[in-house]
Amino acid sequence: MFPELKEKGKSARQAARRLAALDTSTKNNALKAIAHTIMEREPEILTANDHDIDAGQEAGLNEALLDRLLLTVHRLESIAKDVLAVEALPDPIGETFETRILPNGLRIGKQRVPVGVLGVIYESRPNVTVDISALCLKSGNVAILRGGKEALNTNRALAEAIAEACNKVGVPQGAVQLIQSQDRAMVKEMLTANQYIDMIIPRGGAGLHKFALENATIPVITGGIGICHIYVDQSADPEKVVPIVHNAKVQRPTVCNALDTLLIHKDVARAFLPEIADDLARAGVELRCEPRALTVLMGHPAVRSASPGDFDTEFLSLVLAVKVVDGLDEALDHIYQHGTHHSDAILTENYSHAMRFVNEVDSAAVYVNASTRFTDGGQFGLGAEVAVSTQRLHARGPMGLKELTTYKWVVFGEGQVRG
Amino acid sequence: MFPELKEKGKSARQAARRLAALDTSTKNNALKAIAHTIMEREPEILTANDHDIDAGQEAGLNEALLDRLLLTVHRLESIAKDVLAVEALPDPIGETFETRILPNGLRIGKQRVPVGVLGVIYESRPNVTVDISALCLKSGNVAILRGGKEALNTNRALAEAIAEACNKVGVPQGAVQLIQSQDRAMVKEMLTANQYIDMIIPRGGAGLHKFALENATIPVITGGIGICHIYVDQSADPEKVVPIVHNAKVQRPTVCNALDTLLIHKDVARAFLPEIADDLARAGVELRCEPRALTVLMGHPAVRSASPGDFDTEFLSLVLAVKVVDGLDEALDHIYQHGTHHSDAILTENYSHAMRFVNEVDSAAVYVNASTRFTDGGQFGLGAEVAVSTQRLHARGPMGLKELTTYKWVVFGEGQVRG
Repeated sequence: MFPELKEKGKSARQAARRLAALDTSTKNNALKAIAHTIMEREPEILTANDHDIDAGQEAGLNEALLDRLLLTVHRLESIAKDVLAVEALPDPIGETFETRILPNGLRIGKQRVPVGVLGVIYESRPNVTVDISALCLKSGNVAILRGGKEALNTNRALAEAIAEACNKVGVPQGAVQLIQSQDRAMVKEMLTANQYIDMIIPRGGAGLHKFALENATIPVITGGIGICHIYVDQSADPEKVVPIVHNAKVQRPTVCNALDTLLIHKDVARAFLPEIADDLARAGVELRCEPRALTVLMGHPAVRSASPGDFDTEFLSLVLAVKVVDGLDEALDHIYQHGTHHSDAILTENYSHAMRFVNEVDSAAVYVNASTRFTDGGQFGLGAEVAVSTQRLHARGPMGLKELTTYKWVVFGEGQVRG
Repeated sequence: MFPELKEKGKSARQAARRLAALDTSTKNNALKAIAHTIMEREPEILTANDHDIDAGQEAGLNEALLDRLLLTVHRLESIAKDVLAVEALPDPIGETFETRILPNGLRIGKQRVPVGVLGVIYESRPNVTVDISALCLKSGNVAILRGGKEALNTNRALAEAIAEACNKVGVPQGAVQLIQSQDRAMVKEMLTANQYIDMIIPRGGAGLHKFALENATIPVITGGIGICHIYVDQSADPEKVVPIVHNAKVQRPTVCNALDTLLIHKDVARAFLPEIADDLARAGVELRCEPRALTVLMGHPAVRSASPGDFDTEFLSLVLAVKVVDGLDEALDHIYQHGTHHSDAILTENYSHAMRFVNEVDSAAVYVNASTRFTDGGQFGLGAEVAVSTQRLHARGPMGLKELTTYKWVVFGEGQVRG
């Protein structure tokens, strides 16, 4: 094992025991101090970020990557504000629930406790360093962070600010640790460091998730891949269709909760599709249509014929697959066969159809008459998120503070023995 | 992939979609029918079990294994009764929780849904076949069962009874599937059949758990290994000490929640240890004592000197490691260093010590003044259990119906888009 991982792993494990018992006000003081220190150290952090940007430009990173890497005063302020938003949330640790008294008098219940040590493997966005540190601290977890090499100087400057703030208010040493080594073998070692890490969170593309899943012996939270659907039902409110489809596809097309496939009832295809196509075309969207949709939109400049693979593609760009369906059943079957259990929506005024969609579509987030773009910790009122899970165990969808906890059973007796 | 796994996996995946939507009364009818059919088919099941017992004797299985394998009329009745106990529990599916209305008017909440398809790999006990089928059915999950080869005839007979009962009341085909192949490579294939299985539950020894953890790409629920402690505090009630220690060690020494290590406060070691040793010696327990405990018990016929490894051993037999400690802090440190996060107890009348133990010992089940033997789904009021988890994610301790569920976020809107 890399000496750096061994040393930081040991220190993390020790810190986890003390962090689990840390009182809420020390944790809140730490979050306030982090927000403060980040702004105080703004010049150093931005200078470190300049170095990363320069190196990135030399290395030929594309504009999108450079933009994700870039920090500005405004972005730093917004990062600090997010930390204060986490501070304002209730502390999830210590809550007891499902408490009851058994017939033999045992008082039994579950008590919420931190997961322990989180190993987070992520790519270029430096805000992740701060977001995850804040969520982990508030929920009593230790974070071992391994960011991308293109952000190393920035992440180091941010981690130093976090460590200084934690130190000042009496948070145990080692609560947030940044892995500095950029050796790719380090990632593989993190995935099997069961003695030090309790949960792995990969944040990045499909390749990283697959690599983590195949190589980890530690439980992995997978997610982030979303082939998202909107089904426009026969009874959809005409006022809502274009704005919701537009928002879901256009507002931020590069993220996992953006719309990929539009399904539309055959009886309203002629009424809605031309207007949708005009609206999306103005925003630069290309529509890939199966034959029935193509018939309706024939000759429209933004439209082309779909290839079958288009309905199994997360586009992450201004492309939309379009299909006309016979009704709700066909829409449900399509989503069952092509979906990735991320975010799917129905637009309908029919109560029974809304309830069937909600009950039968098995995705992390299911919507009626709203944009799929809301699948996000901040939007869901969780303050922030460490990840969006599309796996089934432990947590689904946006993961905030509560989703970073587990529980223990607590049993108060008065001498009971088992018969 | 083995054709059997492919075929049963596909069928399981199809059944899962329909089972998730199955109403409670059909599920309850299925459980009643299973209990009924098992008793109706009692002669065939016991004959099948006879064959397994005969083959086991020929193969030279030891008495303990043969006893776990053996079914009798009485045991079959008790299995059927357990199925009816699950029927009597509330259906966890469909519950909505953490519901609230966001400032933008979105009505958001979590809705409880089944995990999906469970792959259960277990050894000789045939009651597991029925227990897990009942819990899975009630929670809307599909079970793919792979029992031990020594129980194959019995498991087949039980699975046929279950299938007949399910069929009769309209449960979708394929809700419970028994893998018949006894090829060991089948287990490895199950662990990576991500397209068919959502959760792996190994039930067996440490070797099986380790194998599953190292080879699975599907999330695994690990558990079942317990080095359990009782700490007898200075203020422990003398009336409670011997009965609880006796029960935890002697009532069923071969299981994971049985006591392995007794820690005792130095000021009460002389008062309690001789009486504990006498009591346990009468039950055939050997005490392995570190030096301070040895001094107190010197010359006692059941006592010998502990080797350091004894404090890191799950004995699963009538052996107990004994250590005198200076107080609560040393007890907490010992459990932190040697425990397996399964079940640990404090015996005390001191309120602050009780609360510190509960807060600081991070085990799946933490007890005050009660036997560790209660860590069990039935004892905790869950009806039955599929496993006792000692991992941190998803569920800890006994896993009943609720622990076989996950959730989806449900969002009711009225045209909201993200700004």
